[in-house]
Amino acid sequence: MAPLTPRLVVPIDVKKHPWEQKVPLHNRWHPDIPPVADVTEGEFFRIEMVDWSGGRVKDDNSADDMKSMDFTIAHYLSGPLRIVDSDGVPASPGDLLAVEICNLGPLPGDEWGYTAILERENGGGFLTDHFPSARKAIWYFEGIYAYSPQIPGVRFPGLTHPGVVGTAPSVELLNIWNEREKRLAETNQDTLKLCEVLHQRPLAHLPTAENCLLGKIREGTAEWHKIANEAARTIPGRENGGNCDIKNLSRGSKVYLPVFVEGANLSTGDMHFSQGDGEISLCGAIEMSGFLELRCEIIRGGMKEYLTPVGPTPLHVNPIFEIGPVEPRFSEWLVFEGISVDESGKQHFLDASVAYKRAVLNAIEYLSKFGYSKEQAYLLLSCCPCEGRISGIVDSPNAVTTLAIPTAIFDQDIKPKRLSERPLPGPKLRRLPDLLSCSNNGQLPVTQGQSGTRAP
Amino acid sequence: MAPLTPRLVVPIDVKKHPWEQKVPLHNRWHPDIPPVADVTEGEFFRIEMVDWSGGRVKDDNSADDMKSMDFTIAHYLSGPLRIVDSDGVPASPGDLLAVEICNLGPLPGDEWGYTAILERENGGGFLTDHFPSARKAIWYFEGIYAYSPQIPGVRFPGLTHPGVVGTAPSVELLNIWNEREKRLAETNQDTLKLCEVLHQRPLAHLPTAENCLLGKIREGTAEWHKIANEAARTIPGRENGGNCDIKNLSRGSKVYLPVFVEGANLSTGDMHFSQGDGEISLCGAIEMSGFLELRCEIIRGGMKEYLTPVGPTPLHVNPIFEIGPVEPRFSEWLVFEGISVDESGKQHFLDASVAYKRAVLNAIEYLSKFGYSKEQAYLLLSCCPCEGRISGIVDSPNAVTTLAIPTAIFDQDIKPKRLSERPLPGPKLRRLPDLLSCSNNGQLPVTQGQSGTRAP
Amino acid sequence: MAPLTPRLVVPIDVKKHPWEQKVPLHNRWHPDIPPVADVTEGEFFRIEMVDWSGGRVKDDNSADDMKSMDFTIAHYLSGPLRIVDSDGVPASPGDLLAVEICNLGPLPGDEWGYTAILERENGGGFLTDHFPSARKAIWYFEGIYAYSPQIPGVRFPGLTHPGVVGTAPSVELLNIWNEREKRLAETNQDTLKLCEVLHQRPLAHLPTAENCLLGKIREGTAEWHKIANEAARTIPGRENGGNCDIKNLSRGSKVYLPVFVEGANLSTGDMHFSQGDGEISLCGAIEMSGFLELRCEIIRGGMKEYLTPVGPTPLHVNPIFEIGPVEPRFSEWLVFEGISVDESGKQHFLDASVAYKRAVLNAIEYLSKFGYSKEQAYLLLSCCPCEGRISGIVDSPNAVTTLAIPTAIFDQDIKPKRLSERPLPGPKLRRLPDLLSCSNNGQLPVTQGQSGTRAP
Amino acid sequence: MAPLTPRLVVPIDVKKHPWEQKVPLHNRWHPDIPPVADVTEGEFFRIEMVDWSGGRVKDDNSADDMKSMDFTIAHYLSGPLRIVDSDGVPASPGDLLAVEICNLGPLPGDEWGYTAILERENGGGFLTDHFPSARKAIWYFEGIYAYSPQIPGVRFPGLTHPGVVGTAPSVELLNIWNEREKRLAETNQDTLKLCEVLHQRPLAHLPTAENCLLGKIREGTAEWHKIANEAARTIPGRENGGNCDIKNLSRGSKVYLPVFVEGANLSTGDMHFSQGDGEISLCGAIEMSGFLELRCEIIRGGMKEYLTPVGPTPLHVNPIFEIGPVEPRFSEWLVFEGISVDESGKQHFLDASVAYKRAVLNAIEYLSKFGYSKEQAYLLLSCCPCEGRISGIVDSPNAVTTLAIPTAIFDQDIKPKRLSERPLPGPKLRRLPDLLSCSNNGQLPVTQGQSGTRAP
Repeated sequence: MAPLTPRLVVPIDVKKHPWEQKVPLHNRWHPDIPPVADVTEGEFFRIEMVDWSGGRVKDDNSADDMKSMDFTIAHYLSGPLRIVDSDGVPASPGDLLAVEICNLGPLPGDEWGYTAILERENGGGFLTDHFPSARKAIWYFEGIYAYSPQIPGVRFPGLTHPGVVGTAPSVELLNIWNEREKRLAETNQDTLKLCEVLHQRPLAHLPTAENCLLGKIREGTAEWHKIANEAARTIPGRENGGNCDIKNLSRGSKVYLPVFVEGANLSTGDMHFSQGDGEISLCGAIEMSGFLELRCEIIRGGMKEYLTPVGPTPLHVNPIFEIGPVEPRFSEWLVFEGISVDESGKQHFLDASVAYKRAVLNAIEYLSKFGYSKEQAYLLLSCCPCEGRISGIVDSPNAVTTLAIPTAIFDQDIKPKRLSERPLPGPKLRRLPDLLSCSNNGQLPVTQGQSGTRAP
Repeated sequence: MAPLTPRLVVPIDVKKHPWEQKVPLHNRWHPDIPPVADVTEGEFFRIEMVDWSGGRVKDDNSADDMKSMDFTIAHYLSGPLRIVDSDGVPASPGDLLAVEICNLGPLPGDEWGYTAILERENGGGFLTDHFPSARKAIWYFEGIYAYSPQIPGVRFPGLTHPGVVGTAPSVELLNIWNEREKRLAETNQDTLKLCEVLHQRPLAHLPTAENCLLGKIREGTAEWHKIANEAARTIPGRENGGNCDIKNLSRGSKVYLPVFVEGANLSTGDMHFSQGDGEISLCGAIEMSGFLELRCEIIRGGMKEYLTPVGPTPLHVNPIFEIGPVEPRFSEWLVFEGISVDESGKQHFLDASVAYKRAVLNAIEYLSKFGYSKEQAYLLLSCCPCEGRISGIVDSPNAVTTLAIPTAIFDQDIKPKRLSERPLPGPKLRRLPDLLSCSNNGQLPVTQGQSGTRAP
Repeated sequence: MAPLTPRLVVPIDVKKHPWEQKVPLHNRWHPDIPPVADVTEGEFFRIEMVDWSGGRVKDDNSADDMKSMDFTIAHYLSGPLRIVDSDGVPASPGDLLAVEICNLGPLPGDEWGYTAILERENGGGFLTDHFPSARKAIWYFEGIYAYSPQIPGVRFPGLTHPGVVGTAPSVELLNIWNEREKRLAETNQDTLKLCEVLHQRPLAHLPTAENCLLGKIREGTAEWHKIANEAARTIPGRENGGNCDIKNLSRGSKVYLPVFVEGANLSTGDMHFSQGDGEISLCGAIEMSGFLELRCEIIRGGMKEYLTPVGPTPLHVNPIFEIGPVEPRFSEWLVFEGISVDESGKQHFLDASVAYKRAVLNAIEYLSKFGYSKEQAYLLLSCCPCEGRISGIVDSPNAVTTLAIPTAIFDQDIKPKRLSERPLPGPKLRRLPDLLSCSNNGQLPVTQGQSGTRAP
Repeated sequence: MAPLTPRLVVPIDVKKHPWEQKVPLHNRWHPDIPPVADVTEGEFFRIEMVDWSGGRVKDDNSADDMKSMDFTIAHYLSGPLRIVDSDGVPASPGDLLAVEICNLGPLPGDEWGYTAILERENGGGFLTDHFPSARKAIWYFEGIYAYSPQIPGVRFPGLTHPGVVGTAPSVELLNIWNEREKRLAETNQDTLKLCEVLHQRPLAHLPTAENCLLGKIREGTAEWHKIANEAARTIPGRENGGNCDIKNLSRGSKVYLPVFVEGANLSTGDMHFSQGDGEISLCGAIEMSGFLELRCEIIRGGMKEYLTPVGPTPLHVNPIFEIGPVEPRFSEWLVFEGISVDESGKQHFLDASVAYKRAVLNAIEYLSKFGYSKEQAYLLLSCCPCEGRISGIVDSPNAVTTLAIPTAIFDQDIKPKRLSERPLPGPKLRRLPDLLSCSNNGQLPVTQGQSGTRAP
């Protein structure tokens, strides 16, 4: 009868280093990274992946590993896969590749994850001016649920998804990326108005051969050097999908990716057990190793048919996707608002990033009333299934964003109450442990207050 | 037994002008606009409202009324209401006012609404560079559903909400608003980087006595002149709530508003039958007259207890709210992504507004494949229950936003399909009428293409 | 432009008796009750209705009205409406009538309802052997929410629906009804095995001229006598729809009714603010007056096309319907199981009615642990949005049913807990008022225990 | 750090027979079947299981295996597990055992299932008079989705659950079961009124030593003989839970089981990938092998605290449970009604089983309009996530039940439509394969019509 199990196309052994895996991994986007396997459309197959860091973050008692994280590596990806139709004809540029996520989850035997604050001088995050020091929380999984010894009093079902899924760029698209990001990186920061508010740095991550892993391309060869110096970093999401960190790309969803090179060259990685909209602390999802079970379909000519470019070339498109049927279901939400006035009181013009920063700050302050440290609240909002919405974007000068938190994830009632209705604070509120910090935290800049001014 | 019906605190006669209503309306925020009624906490009461324009937009065959809309008026609000506790003691600065929206809807006998594109030179909108000319669609209501002769092939249940609900600012808060918005308005536009992308103008709406309506304060008196020249315009949402345009503030929701003046002075207006996240075309919700049935509760000292200020003063807070239990329920969504690269291909740094603009443009282009004009798609995304999310805000340099559209609102299947699976295009796709335009449209700048460059 | 409001086809004045209404009502099913109005398909129209009792139940402090309720009246219905197509051709036997419930709710100014236990000797109910005495609870509405002074500690959004909606039977269908129900009524009760468990009586309600109201047919005429003696009582749901008491037939739903007579002759009544599956206490919904806003569509030949008869004649069909998009949304449910073993311990064969009785008894006992009297729990389960499911119907000898209760309707946490996790019982648990009873309750048989044996 | 993976307490090798498994299985309920392992409360553990038939049903081209199925075996269960607290003290009679289903699914490498009609003379099913011949459909899983070559045109996400989960009965409870079921089995069938309508036989399954498997008890020993002759069959759900076949007992749910013997002796089996309410074809779920990941908690004294007996002894209780947060989410449902009039036109008194039979028949007839055979529709309603509700149980003489089917599982639009709106029937409607049948079907009684009379 029919084949019963998904074909395992990319196996992972989490006890090995990323560069030691049987099917080689890669950590850059480039058209010349050769496919590691062929997959036929309609076929049900399985692809495993290391966590984004490739095992550099440990289930231990310190945030030291986060402090010294080397970002020239970023995400280790599984793939590329060459997708062919039932006649063996590969997907072609201009096609649309429909990828259905039939299932996903942690790797058996490796059911844990972490979420972390990065050091301000080493990657930062959405609120790096408020939380400049590395911190870490470990999460353990009990089936669909996650809990953390470092953030007690919450437990929630995962809206699990791959942070990164994308096709390989063509040379032309790669050039567009490198050019526009280089131009941004060369900008005088002081002329970038958002930089007054978003302190995360660097502005962009340009190609570098350092720590480059290119799948089947042997390191040190001429080909390796050429690719390594041009290949795009995996940090931002782009036209090919990539690190879009969309929490709803979960079980049963279907993403339509544009095809830029023959075979599509599909890669994926950076599995998240759960993430809040925005992934605000940067390493903000519950990061883990994992598996995907996929089915692909080629929609011939689908790019032209469905994806009208918005930009100067036909390559300026973005993926679209359909949400799956089994997302965790919450009926009660507490929602925080933010407007585009920054922490110093300055008015910005319809700036949704600023407005979202304020909504997040409001939520952090609020949760800190219920026994959480602000760092704990920051990490919780990074990884729990909270929703960040652009509610108003036209009422000058204020953009309005909202951050909705499902109240059922807490073991206490966090809704506002009159004094007479409030329960007495229980033992949980008093003995909260805090996040994991670094061994030398004393030397680090302390967490800043709400003023948002940078530490000297 | 108990009182059966809500007490009607603010009645509206839609056949009368806003300034002729029995209980006088107002269209500014100011602490000295006197309350029109007292409401006791716990009381179940009803407040009616004109549509935001006060009847200036007609159910007719032309968008002329939108072309010439005078924005010095903006929203006509019902209120202010002075909220007192059961002992008659009014809400005080520092309290939190919980307002439960027990019910809301259109006014009986006035079950229609409109959604419109504003003229670029007269208010604009999120995509005013793409859609500079006034357009209008009329919506008729059949109970929970709305349909429009100008946007055929869609029908959806309303997620009805008041665009504006807020408390009066204190003098101190009003001064903060006026100062920060004035500073923005005086900025050289060319130094505001978002202005390259968001072409809507003006940057801010400063106080003006023109068309000022101040409730019980007689026009022309000294008091009127004083207030009119200081009072804040109602266009943006701010610390007091106001025009937040949050679509989820619907039936059964509960908003917690900070109290800045004695009695709270609660005002509301700008009822929306439905709105998409962002309300992108500015007059983008299905605008209508309507009623609210409310119940208030005073949480004494609640501002300090629950709302930690994020900013230089204790007044820099924002409301929070709980979502109600009867929002329309959709299980299938088609989602469009946008990254912070603008239409010219320029890379911006983690700019969610730019990324959302691109997601919206992607969705408009997509829908135009299914028989809609781009203007129709723009208005549809302004008013249908679509969700705009900040999915990624830390992966430099790209913010990633998503726009999720419930597919059940269409009478055709809009999901991407292989050619062999596509139904033959039916009659609906061919004979679509279009939006209402203005009588002199020939003289107006034409709708621009996707390049995003400003018209000369 | 378009007509803005629904046409009011059947107005109701709740201050008048049912037989005094401007458009006459009826309380029987018969093909010869003449239509009171014509409605064109596609038209958006409004129909108002008295509560099922026609005002016989009062918002007062006693259950006396329930004790003496005369059931020869049962439901007062609005209609019949003759449905015609746009050419004026009426719906014909064999068509399917699609009725969309665009909106519904209480009548303005009459926003209250009641739910009651009927006297065992006068109608009974699902648990009449356990709760033989009349009781009453009054519910007040605050917009979408209902609360009752007699059942404190709960408040929930309504899943409002008409208990009765149906088309007129043909003569042939009416004869089928009368014949089969007569045969049942004549059965020796002792041979009906369910009667050992379901003590409600009588077995069926046969035609009677007593208290017959027949719309435009004048009482006392020969025509009246003829119809009154044949017309079907409105108590059970049947092939024409009728008193189906389906709680999900709410806002936005669409019911497809078979057409048996020319014009369809649509009637409706018995509005429920809310009801649990089963409507177990018989007068178990929150009964109220109300309005419906409808739109009809005729599917020509649809009965044959879509409704295959299951039974000896082509008339043995049942309506089908689609659920609407705005039902109250709950994410947490506590579920009680029941198997087909009755209260005396006797085993029944795959009997879902017995199994559901046990599930309900289990739930009542459980809720009585949280401060409710058993009568309060019985009424609460009759009217709150709980779900009764047939979970297993094949595992001999036990049918398994489940009763799911949304926990969010309670102001306390009703989930099972370890002693150490349980909150101290608060004041709400101690001072609960109870249901309204009758003035002479002392003389009535007392509520029985769990044995289920009938009182002598 | 913490233990990362669930402890595997009961491993299964699907290539071995049930009686060859490393940890022995059992297929009866009895207090003296010894525990196979201890589990500590709070511990996260994994238990694997064979499919209910223990591998007797094959992924092949014939329904022969269903025809000859030996029902003296019924369910092979994994367990019993002895549950102890952190001090090693076992759960005691009178406690409540909370079992959280943290995760579940098919066994890796065995991702397929089946659903079947049983031969009328060999088990039958809810509609055995209409469908007396064995049939089978194989389902393959693609992650969360299932599809069947024998029921084309549908694909749906699983609401996976164990059909059987329960604690061991005490001697006293076992005696109650055996006595009441024996009394039923001895009843003259003709006096059981439901038997006129429900043709499934036998009435009950009494203890038999035939094919008895008793875990660690060696077959043939005196102990084995004693237990085998008393032990309860696993077919019906009872006070201890057991084969309740509740489809909502899925991921993240929590069931509270009464404890009747020291250690609780928890057993589970009969995994279902998906099932409709009622599991109408008896072998009606998508049956499979699988795993459960569980966490237990002992609520000391919880039976008395939370489960009031309904019946003659303190043991007459039923489990309760909480629904989990990740059930598949559907927003559109087509609903079929049934009333308690049987297929011969006979009126029954408030009989929910009869009413549900009619609702199911209505749905089967309806689906057969869309290209399905009636047998296909019968099996589809057995296993797809449809909801069977008791909508009205008090309106004499008709019980009203409803069967709600999520329309999204079909690849065609199955809602009723006017002729002009109907799509042309596509190729899918024409070339449907049908179910698997038996090799000798020619000799079997043919499927009967709708009359419901038994074959001679």
